[in-house]
Amino acid sequence: MTDFVLDEQRAGRIGFGEAVFCAGKSPEQIAAILDGTNIALLLTRLDTHQFTALPEQQRQRLDYDSVSRTAFFGAPAPLAGPASVAVVTAGTSDVPVARESIRTLRFSGQDAALIADVGVAGLWRLMRRLDELRSFDVLIVAAGMDAALPSVMGGLVPGVIIAVPTSVGYGVATGGQAALNAILASCAPGLLAVNIDNGYGAACAALRVLACRTPSAGSSRVV
Amino acid sequence: MTDFVLDEQRAGRIGFGEAVFCAGKSPEQIAAILDGTNIALLLTRLDTHQFTALPEQQRQRLDYDSVSRTAFFGAPAPLAGPASVAVVTAGTSDVPVARESIRTLRFSGQDAALIADVGVAGLWRLMRRLDELRSFDVLIVAAGMDAALPSVMGGLVPGVIIAVPTSVGYGVATGGQAALNAILASCAPGLLAVNIDNGYGAACAALRVLACRTPSAGSSRVV
Amino acid sequence: MTDFVLDEQRAGRIGFGEAVFCAGKSPEQIAAILDGTNIALLLTRLDTHQFTALPEQQRQRLDYDSVSRTAFFGAPAPLAGPASVAVVTAGTSDVPVARESIRTLRFSGQDAALIADVGVAGLWRLMRRLDELRSFDVLIVAAGMDAALPSVMGGLVPGVIIAVPTSVGYGVATGGQAALNAILASCAPGLLAVNIDNGYGAACAALRVLACRTPSAGSSRVV
Amino acid sequence: MTDFVLDEQRAGRIGFGEAVFCAGKSPEQIAAILDGTNIALLLTRLDTHQFTALPEQQRQRLDYDSVSRTAFFGAPAPLAGPASVAVVTAGTSDVPVARESIRTLRFSGQDAALIADVGVAGLWRLMRRLDELRSFDVLIVAAGMDAALPSVMGGLVPGVIIAVPTSVGYGVATGGQAALNAILASCAPGLLAVNIDNGYGAACAALRVLACRTPSAGSSRVV
Amino acid sequence: MTDFVLDEQRAGRIGFGEAVFCAGKSPEQIAAILDGTNIALLLTRLDTHQFTALPEQQRQRLDYDSVSRTAFFGAPAPLAGPASVAVVTAGTSDVPVARESIRTLRFSGQDAALIADVGVAGLWRLMRRLDELRSFDVLIVAAGMDAALPSVMGGLVPGVIIAVPTSVGYGVATGGQAALNAILASCAPGLLAVNIDNGYGAACAALRVLACRTPSAGSSRVV
Amino acid sequence: MTDFVLDEQRAGRIGFGEAVFCAGKSPEQIAAILDGTNIALLLTRLDTHQFTALPEQQRQRLDYDSVSRTAFFGAPAPLAGPASVAVVTAGTSDVPVARESIRTLRFSGQDAALIADVGVAGLWRLMRRLDELRSFDVLIVAAGMDAALPSVMGGLVPGVIIAVPTSVGYGVATGGQAALNAILASCAPGLLAVNIDNGYGAACAALRVLACRTPSAGSSRVV
Amino acid sequence: MTDFVLDEQRAGRIGFGEAVFCAGKSPEQIAAILDGTNIALLLTRLDTHQFTALPEQQRQRLDYDSVSRTAFFGAPAPLAGPASVAVVTAGTSDVPVARESIRTLRFSGQDAALIADVGVAGLWRLMRRLDELRSFDVLIVAAGMDAALPSVMGGLVPGVIIAVPTSVGYGVATGGQAALNAILASCAPGLLAVNIDNGYGAACAALRVLACRTPSAGSSRVV
Amino acid sequence: MTDFVLDEQRAGRIGFGEAVFCAGKSPEQIAAILDGTNIALLLTRLDTHQFTALPEQQRQRLDYDSVSRTAFFGAPAPLAGPASVAVVTAGTSDVPVARESIRTLRFSGQDAALIADVGVAGLWRLMRRLDELRSFDVLIVAAGMDAALPSVMGGLVPGVIIAVPTSVGYGVATGGQAALNAILASCAPGLLAVNIDNGYGAACAALRVLACRTPSAGSSRVV
Repeated sequence: MTDFVLDEQRAGRIGFGEAVFCAGKSPEQIAAILDGTNIALLLTRLDTHQFTALPEQQRQRLDYDSVSRTAFFGAPAPLAGPASVAVVTAGTSDVPVARESIRTLRFSGQDAALIADVGVAGLWRLMRRLDELRSFDVLIVAAGMDAALPSVMGGLVPGVIIAVPTSVGYGVATGGQAALNAILASCAPGLLAVNIDNGYGAACAALRVLACRTPSAGSSRVV
Repeated sequence: MTDFVLDEQRAGRIGFGEAVFCAGKSPEQIAAILDGTNIALLLTRLDTHQFTALPEQQRQRLDYDSVSRTAFFGAPAPLAGPASVAVVTAGTSDVPVARESIRTLRFSGQDAALIADVGVAGLWRLMRRLDELRSFDVLIVAAGMDAALPSVMGGLVPGVIIAVPTSVGYGVATGGQAALNAILASCAPGLLAVNIDNGYGAACAALRVLACRTPSAGSSRVV
Repeated sequence: MTDFVLDEQRAGRIGFGEAVFCAGKSPEQIAAILDGTNIALLLTRLDTHQFTALPEQQRQRLDYDSVSRTAFFGAPAPLAGPASVAVVTAGTSDVPVARESIRTLRFSGQDAALIADVGVAGLWRLMRRLDELRSFDVLIVAAGMDAALPSVMGGLVPGVIIAVPTSVGYGVATGGQAALNAILASCAPGLLAVNIDNGYGAACAALRVLACRTPSAGSSRVV
Repeated sequence: MTDFVLDEQRAGRIGFGEAVFCAGKSPEQIAAILDGTNIALLLTRLDTHQFTALPEQQRQRLDYDSVSRTAFFGAPAPLAGPASVAVVTAGTSDVPVARESIRTLRFSGQDAALIADVGVAGLWRLMRRLDELRSFDVLIVAAGMDAALPSVMGGLVPGVIIAVPTSVGYGVATGGQAALNAILASCAPGLLAVNIDNGYGAACAALRVLACRTPSAGSSRVV
Repeated sequence: MTDFVLDEQRAGRIGFGEAVFCAGKSPEQIAAILDGTNIALLLTRLDTHQFTALPEQQRQRLDYDSVSRTAFFGAPAPLAGPASVAVVTAGTSDVPVARESIRTLRFSGQDAALIADVGVAGLWRLMRRLDELRSFDVLIVAAGMDAALPSVMGGLVPGVIIAVPTSVGYGVATGGQAALNAILASCAPGLLAVNIDNGYGAACAALRVLACRTPSAGSSRVV
Repeated sequence: MTDFVLDEQRAGRIGFGEAVFCAGKSPEQIAAILDGTNIALLLTRLDTHQFTALPEQQRQRLDYDSVSRTAFFGAPAPLAGPASVAVVTAGTSDVPVARESIRTLRFSGQDAALIADVGVAGLWRLMRRLDELRSFDVLIVAAGMDAALPSVMGGLVPGVIIAVPTSVGYGVATGGQAALNAILASCAPGLLAVNIDNGYGAACAALRVLACRTPSAGSSRVV
Repeated sequence: MTDFVLDEQRAGRIGFGEAVFCAGKSPEQIAAILDGTNIALLLTRLDTHQFTALPEQQRQRLDYDSVSRTAFFGAPAPLAGPASVAVVTAGTSDVPVARESIRTLRFSGQDAALIADVGVAGLWRLMRRLDELRSFDVLIVAAGMDAALPSVMGGLVPGVIIAVPTSVGYGVATGGQAALNAILASCAPGLLAVNIDNGYGAACAALRVLACRTPSAGSSRVV
Repeated sequence: MTDFVLDEQRAGRIGFGEAVFCAGKSPEQIAAILDGTNIALLLTRLDTHQFTALPEQQRQRLDYDSVSRTAFFGAPAPLAGPASVAVVTAGTSDVPVARESIRTLRFSGQDAALIADVGVAGLWRLMRRLDELRSFDVLIVAAGMDAALPSVMGGLVPGVIIAVPTSVGYGVATGGQAALNAILASCAPGLLAVNIDNGYGAACAALRVLACRTPSAGSSRVV
């Protein structure tokens, strides 16, 4: 009896496919999962130690990015067109989370723009890019500490804002709960939140938004 | 010097207008705000005591709903078409929050369907309406206690899911934090969260989603 | 044996005088304190019920303000000059806390300007008053919910910023802890925090700042 | 004077025997406990480093399982018959906790079935095994993150449901408190909870349930 | 469209019927639910104000108990035999929760014994009733404050122990979280917990245990 | 069957007698307890509403103090001699908790001195009474907010210091947890803590200390 | 300018001497402190790595115990007589904390008895030693997890009970907060608490109690 | 596109320059930032491993201090005169945080005095330096555990008090939240708080205070 059952029909039901959350899984478990399927899979939270411990043959089949700790098993979907999504960070330390979003979107065929280090402590960095920011349908905003950036953006841009609190910070900011609460308590109307550091989930939500613009039948891709 | 400054240009910037959060404001403050503007306004968290204490003349200008504690000052926008949004509740006690969403959407010209009491303790109630649920672009899901409903829906429907944790429950569920955390920690991909009991914010987010389907220039409406 | 011992030498030690925190004290206790002293006193957290229950004779000696729940027992110090302190609020509901600061400053002879409702959801409200804000030595900033306002100001103005988180909000913002944490975790350098809703403490801190500009020997004033 | 006193009469009082919780104990302490008794013992939370540091002679007397971190000292009780208990997991990462339950049950002579990876994100995985799940007297359900699985099962199966929240997850799910609260707040009637990651305690509770079907006099087994 | 959907098939699926959690529901909502069904229902958390506000005709059909805040709509099931369940309280203040359990069991045809005020501060009160306690299949133990009673009982009796933390206490015990954590962290093996003050849920769990002794087909009873 | 069982032998076991914690009990329950015993009893947390609702005959037998919410049922023990215990408060608002200690001690025959309002904000108030404070065997110190007083005393006096955090304060001090944590985390060696607002428990602990100076056989007193 | 100032007059003020809390100090800092004084000192939280890194010459002057992580610098005080203090543990894992108490007492000339592993899961272990436990003036009780042991003892023995919650446990018991809260919320009268794992502080409090039996002038001892 | 955008105009806006928070940044990122600018920069939270991993050439340009984990990139501003700021610590373990303040001030041209180990457990250490402490305009006070020191100082000195809670301590003090809350809840008037361990932020706030004494136009310094 195996320990796992892949949800291979997911793309047909909700428009994007199964992913494997690798944190806490042994290299043996990950290898077994990859051996047992022929659909394309996104691997998340795959750290360098886990990746290195995979069999050579499997490593070669993976497109791995160590910063975002993601890997593509099988080819990503072809790009659907120019980027409708911007991934914005308040600071440099939020970039790994932002890249998890970008890679997740890319795997599903969506390009995304990275707009980094526009935190409100130096407000001019945000204001000079306002026109650009207003042109996107969806804005994924990764911010830690006090997470004031999504609040400020919420009053300035019309797009869908998916805020990702990050665990960047210390003291009362440790772990990201202060950032999360600031986002949820924002006085700016219509901000949306995902779990702390959940760049993957923010991207999945963005895919749901993009899909409702031009509905299409999703399906799992064969490797 | 006044205590308030309405953000009358909001609709032009982000696509929907200013609202007045009435909790903690005196009837005098609310009356002064209404006296000082000629744009249409949504009032939220206006409880019956506050409403009753307003001047007769102002009460007559308001379309007030006591269940959702909302009022329309000025006419709502004309309906944009059939409902693209479903507002779903896990239980009967979540209905006031759901109605705050429905009223907020209505004020901006969007119709919404209410699908009530489909919590997972009796899963058949959800499953029999699955085709209907899969037809909406956006699903606002209000759930308290353990908030398992949005997780189950997240694996079944392709639409944008905006989960509103509610403060329904007791013991560890008191105040809605358990529901909120369950939503944020969900294993279903792409759920989005707003603050506890924030039916208004969920609706604003839905407006952002709907706007990215068919972009148009928003503007404040004159009363 | 009495239940209280006034710290009548406080002004001589630290530059401003004793105050009586009335929350949780009976009208009898408050009356006994006033009867037993001849120094000028500031009363804080004196709600309307407590004030009304005081003996008529004492009520007439008090300069009472119900919004800030403060009273002056004895004359305030003469004004020291034009306002060096601005008291800023993010929203209308933060005004009672702001007024507690203003009254505390006034009692010690400092004028203060009120700049209300400049929260970041409508950023233009803040930006149009930036030059004015930059002209003050000290800025007391009262903000609830996500308290993004002090973060934004921290990057824009050179003055001393004393942020007062307020208990305005609901859900994760209930009680003001989210606002407090956002202030403490702010990426803007050099923000200072006091306890939630502590307009009095913020004003005392401002008095310490003002005193270090032009040192002078403080002393209790006789009623 | 020794640091420990085994409760050798436990089985006679409550129907199953003493166990040694090894977390935080030195190999020397564990060895001394084993040297000082002749009753069969279950060892829990015995990690690989502790096991390896035990004297060779004692290691050989132990039936050790590294995934569940359990060891049998002395023979387990003979199997009482076919499995009356199913141990169910929401995801692959919950398997170590599930195995601690299975090993604890096995040590006391109860077989248990493992039903893995039936989390509600892909609901079909659960629904296809519903008849099987409905046939067990007791269901131990290990789930982390949002722990929605026990809530869904609670409305579908009549057996005793013992939910074990696991510490699987990140952000607000870190440590398992979100899963625990979701279980306790569940709208499904009659769910029972044990401590986070407490597969051992869930199995002990199952033994209590099974015993009340066919009461018998328990007694400690000699090694 | 109504706000509620009763789960009338519940008894057929899991062995006991639907209940209506009345906290937060208006008398109108409760009346509508009762008007719309003909199955027997248990009402919980129905406080005296709600009960009094129901239509006279409905009040007469209800068997109401104000201490436990429960009501029977329709006749309870006939008693299945002598009590297999004891409901135990640590103190007098835990009695309302205990009675909610007793009433829930009675509605489903199970008698239960009340053993009150046997908290461990006076251990002799527990010890003198030990033989009696050891004779029950299931023990529901309601305890607040430090909830040491279930821990002590867990080492002394073989039955299934379902501990209900109560919100009795002050300071760190306020709300019952300290009691809940003590139960979950107990060193006694095999304790089971439900939500704070959840006498109803404890009884439902007891029904699941009793059912696995002598399986039978449940069904909803007509009023 | 009654809901309560008095622990009438307590004094014989631990040196001081049973007390009745009245919070949450109905006047009927309290009256029944008093009717059913003939030992002297201390009643705590008996608020004015409860006291007034008792039968006239019972009220006359009670020595009631509304500030401390305590009542003596039966005569207190004769005074054992001059006060060995000082009860110290940081502020005026801590007095009700201090009086609960004093009354509990008095009921058991111990006198106690009240030293009020010596909080460290005006350190001279404490320092001028230092010799007096150093003369007591036991010091019960009631302090809310930041509870810095017990820390300062811990470095200055040799007696046993029992610190009672109080729920006095607002914002982060709400409920007394900040005071409790400050006491527990104190850098002064040998501070002891009881629950928030637990003046009764502090007095009981003081009785244990006093008893170990001159051991004697306790026994319940007849009314 | 040095980073430290020893409080060499402490024994004269409060009856026992200065101690050095070594956690977080570098070996260089610890060595400098020892070099700079000639009074006897107790070192606490001195882990093996720190001890090993001290200069050989200083190591030889220290009486070090690795289990309790304590060291004596200078000779301990001569024993004052037979043990008046018992140090009791609920489980084997609580022994390091208990030994910190025993060593602290020994350094000040007080012997103490260790009574280990008498947790309430096997209540007979406690009951058989009850007469012994009742003979001590002070009982330091170290217990983690649910810390039910001090509650049970509080109803059985007349001595001063100083409960030390320990960080033993997992899940909701992680870090010892659940144990601490159970102690503070105990229904047994007169329990006293110190910080989690604070065996040192419990011993200091015991010294205060013992001193009030036979007052004497303390003084620092020369090395 | 780079991951960072330095806020090079900061000094012109708020009076002191940009700093680089190095925690969580890779040596490559830090090196890139230094390569890309020619303004003087303060680096904070630069631990020894990060510093050692920088290119040799960059290390030589940095003035690095391992205790405070700070580095100067470019020359610090010339000293403005004698110290107006004292940095005070409660204990030896608070020194690293204090030094972060001192280095930050030094980088901006302000000298500061260190007054170490004056915690209130030995109050004489503070009192003997009181005149000295009263002479400073600003006092940065670093304290962990119960943080009673800033409360005591608040009643004794007239200067601006910026309290920095530190993460020194264990049990309830772990992480510094108890110290932070004690500071915020202080009964001493006018204390100001920054985030836990935030010596940098306290210094920035001190710079704001000093600037309002003698306003001057700040500007970034070229390396």
